[in-house]
Amino acid sequence: MDIKSIIQKKRERKELNRDEIRYFVSKYTREEITDAQAAALMSYIYINGLTETEILELVKAMAESGTTIDLSEISDNIVDKHSTGGVGDKVTIILMPVIAALGIPVAKISSRGYGISGGTIDKLESIPGFDADITIEEFKEIIKKVGVSIIEQNFDLAPVETKMYKLRNQIACSDSLPLIAASLMSLKLATGGNKFVFDITCGRGTYIKTREEAKRLAKLLNRLGKSLGKEVGCVITSMDEPLGYAIGHNLEIKETIASLRGSMPQDVGEVVVALGSVMLSLATESKNLDQNAVTIRETIKSGRAYQKFKEMVAAQYGSLEYVEHPEKFPEAKYIMPVYSTSSGIIESIDADMVGSIAIYLGAGRMKNQEEINRKAGIVLKKKIGDVVTSGEIVAFIHTDDESKVLGATKNLQEAFIITNKKLSNKSRVLEIL
Amino acid sequence: MDIKSIIQKKRERKELNRDEIRYFVSKYTREEITDAQAAALMSYIYINGLTETEILELVKAMAESGTTIDLSEISDNIVDKHSTGGVGDKVTIILMPVIAALGIPVAKISSRGYGISGGTIDKLESIPGFDADITIEEFKEIIKKVGVSIIEQNFDLAPVETKMYKLRNQIACSDSLPLIAASLMSLKLATGGNKFVFDITCGRGTYIKTREEAKRLAKLLNRLGKSLGKEVGCVITSMDEPLGYAIGHNLEIKETIASLRGSMPQDVGEVVVALGSVMLSLATESKNLDQNAVTIRETIKSGRAYQKFKEMVAAQYGSLEYVEHPEKFPEAKYIMPVYSTSSGIIESIDADMVGSIAIYLGAGRMKNQEEINRKAGIVLKKKIGDVVTSGEIVAFIHTDDESKVLGATKNLQEAFIITNKKLSNKSRVLEIL
Repeated sequence: MDIKSIIQKKRERKELNRDEIRYFVSKYTREEITDAQAAALMSYIYINGLTETEILELVKAMAESGTTIDLSEISDNIVDKHSTGGVGDKVTIILMPVIAALGIPVAKISSRGYGISGGTIDKLESIPGFDADITIEEFKEIIKKVGVSIIEQNFDLAPVETKMYKLRNQIACSDSLPLIAASLMSLKLATGGNKFVFDITCGRGTYIKTREEAKRLAKLLNRLGKSLGKEVGCVITSMDEPLGYAIGHNLEIKETIASLRGSMPQDVGEVVVALGSVMLSLATESKNLDQNAVTIRETIKSGRAYQKFKEMVAAQYGSLEYVEHPEKFPEAKYIMPVYSTSSGIIESIDADMVGSIAIYLGAGRMKNQEEINRKAGIVLKKKIGDVVTSGEIVAFIHTDDESKVLGATKNLQEAFIITNKKLSNKSRVLEIL
Repeated sequence: MDIKSIIQKKRERKELNRDEIRYFVSKYTREEITDAQAAALMSYIYINGLTETEILELVKAMAESGTTIDLSEISDNIVDKHSTGGVGDKVTIILMPVIAALGIPVAKISSRGYGISGGTIDKLESIPGFDADITIEEFKEIIKKVGVSIIEQNFDLAPVETKMYKLRNQIACSDSLPLIAASLMSLKLATGGNKFVFDITCGRGTYIKTREEAKRLAKLLNRLGKSLGKEVGCVITSMDEPLGYAIGHNLEIKETIASLRGSMPQDVGEVVVALGSVMLSLATESKNLDQNAVTIRETIKSGRAYQKFKEMVAAQYGSLEYVEHPEKFPEAKYIMPVYSTSSGIIESIDADMVGSIAIYLGAGRMKNQEEINRKAGIVLKKKIGDVVTSGEIVAFIHTDDESKVLGATKNLQEAFIITNKKLSNKSRVLEIL
C-alpha cells in the first residue's frame, strides 16, 4: 500500500477501503505523508466525494489518531454541543451553564479562535484569572462538583483533525461536506460524549454558504451518528449577520454576562433556546421542543443559569468581581461611531466582512499563537430588519490604533446592505433536524 | 488575486488567465505558495485539464522563473534533444557526437538521475575526470571549438519546473499531459535553443503508459512549438524493455563507447537513427528522413562520431585512456547469472521493475545527492523476441553487496515475461510526428 495509489484510486472515483483510510490517517498524523499528498487526496475527495462507509472509517481513524477521553465515570448522559463557526458567536458560554443548571452534566472542550471565528476559550480568558488549561482530572472534578466546565483542547485530541482542518483552509477545501462531517464527528468521538448537538451555521459569515448545503450536512451527521451508535441533533442557523451586537473578546464576554442576567439579544436567544431544547430532548425524557424552549428561557430568567456560570468561573479561578461588575472590563482607547451612508431597512450585515474588520482591529488571529487585543472589536447598533436613516450611527469601532479607524469605518459601512423593500421577520433558526 | 480563488477557479473548470498563471508560478517559485496549494491546483488540472492558451502561458511563466541561456552567439541553428525518460537510455551520449560530427553545433544541458530514469550526467561522470560542472562561458567555448558539449543543469534554469516535477511525482500526477508538456517545453525554452526533438517514451518503464497518450503529447508539443515560433519534432518510442543490454553507470558508458565504435544494440540503433534523422531534418535542408538515417548510420560507421565523442570528453577533462580501453572501468565484486524459469519467447522485460532492481543494487538514487555505486547494475543477455529455454542465462547482476543477489535474482526473473506465441518483429520506434 502507498499513498500514490490511494490518491489515484480516489481520483478514479473508486471507494477506499478501511485499510487504505487508516493508512492515510496514521501516516499523515506521523508526517510520513506530506501536506502535498494530503492536499491532492482531499482535492479528489472534494470532486468525487466519499461514500458513507468511507466517511465512517475516516471518522473512526481520525478520532483514534490521538488521545481519547473517557467521561463514562461522570455520566453516560453527557450532551456535547458544537458549532460550525460564525462571527460574534457566544452561544456556548451562555448555553452550557443553562444545561448544567438543569442537572445535566456539561463537559465542554473548546478551541481557540482561528480566522474570523472567535474562540470560546479566548473569550472566557477575558475574565481575569480564568484558567482553561487545567488537567483532565481537575476538569472531571469540577464537572462532578459544579456540573459544568469548559477547557481548552490542548491534549492531542484527534490531532490529525487539526492538521486536516488547517490544510483544507489553505487549499480552498473548507466547504467539502464529507470532510466537514468527518472533522466534526471525529472530534466529538474523541471527546468521549455520546450525545451531540450541532449548530450548523450557513451564510456569508461561515464556510457553508447555503441552507441546502447545511441541510445535507445535517442529514449526513444524523446518519453517521446512527451508524456510530450516537444520538445526534442538528440546528441550522443563519449567519447573514454577526450573532448578537458585540464582536471582540471583552465586548462579547460582557454581552454574554448580560445575556445570562436576562438581557439577551433576540437572535442570540433564538439560537440558545433552539440548541438548548434539542440538548434537553437528547438528555432527558422531555422530547417536546416547545416545552423545552420554555424550560430553557425560565432557567435563564430565574437567574439559575447565571448562578451556575459564576460557579464555573470561580471553580476555574476566574474573577467574579469582573462578572458581577462588567464595567470593570477595560475598554479600547478609541470608540468611534460609524454612520450609515444611506436610508432604508437593513437587509444583511456581511458577517465575513465584519469578522475580517474585527481581526484588522486586533480582535483575532490569522496565525496560531498570535497576540490578540481583548479590547478591540465592533459593537453593532443596528441589526437586520432595523430602519436606518443616512447619517445615523449603525455601529461603534473599538480600537487602540487610531490609524485603523478610517479604513475600518469605510469597510464596515460597506458591510451594511440597505434596501427599500420591506423584509419579513425571519428567525435565525432555520430548521431543526 | 489569491491562490485559493485560483484553485477554486480551476476546480470549477474555468480558464485561468495570464495574470493568474503568472501569479501561481512566481509565488510558487518564491515559496509564497505552499506545496499543498500547488498540489491542489495540479490535482484539479489533472482532472479538468488546461486549454492550450493556459499551457502556453504556463510554459512562458515557467521558462522565465529563473535564468535563461542565450546561445544565439554560437548559432541560431542549435537542435536540442530531450527524452521523457526510460531505463537504460544512453541515446543522448551517442547521438550528440553524431550530430556534431555532421557540423551542427550541439549544446546539451542534462540532468542527474532521479528514480528509475538514469541521468546522462551521472553516466558521463563515470569516465574518470569528466567535468559536467563547467561555466557557461567554457561550455560555449567548447561548442565553438569542438562542436559539442554536455553539461549539468545546475544554474537555476526554470527552477519552478524542478519543483513541479518533484511535486507531481509525489502526488501521482506525473502522467498529466498538459503538465508534462509545460514541463518539457519550459525547460527547452529556458535553455535557449529554437529547434527541439522530443523522444517520447511509452510503456511500463516510464510514466506515459500508452501509445495513444504519447501521440496526444506529441501533437500537443508540436502545436505548442508552432505557437512559440519553435521547430519541434517528436519520435514516439516504446519502453516495454530497457534500452540496450546494459543498465547501470559504468555498464552503460561501456555500451555507449561500444556503440560509437560500431557495435550498437539493435534497439539503441533504431532510436539513435530515428532521433538523429529528425534532428537533421530540422537543422538542415535535408528533409528526407530515410536519407538522413543513412547519413547517421554512416557517421557512426566511419568512426567520425566516435572521434567527436573523444574530442568532447577530452575538452571536458575526461580520461581518454578509459574511453579507448573500456576494460579499465572497474567491475562489481559479484557478477551473478540469472537463469530463465521457463521456456519460450520473451514477450517483454518490465523496464520499470528492471530499473527498480538496478536502484536496489545501488545503481540509482531515490533522493537528491544520494550516493550511487557506478559498478552496480544489470546486463541483459536476452531481449524481446529472443528464444529461451528454462535454465538458460537471461541476465547478469552486478553488485558489491552479496546479500542483495538473491532478492534481485528473484525479482529479475519475474521481470521477464515469456510466451509461447510467435511475436512479430517490432521496431522500438513507433511513430515520428
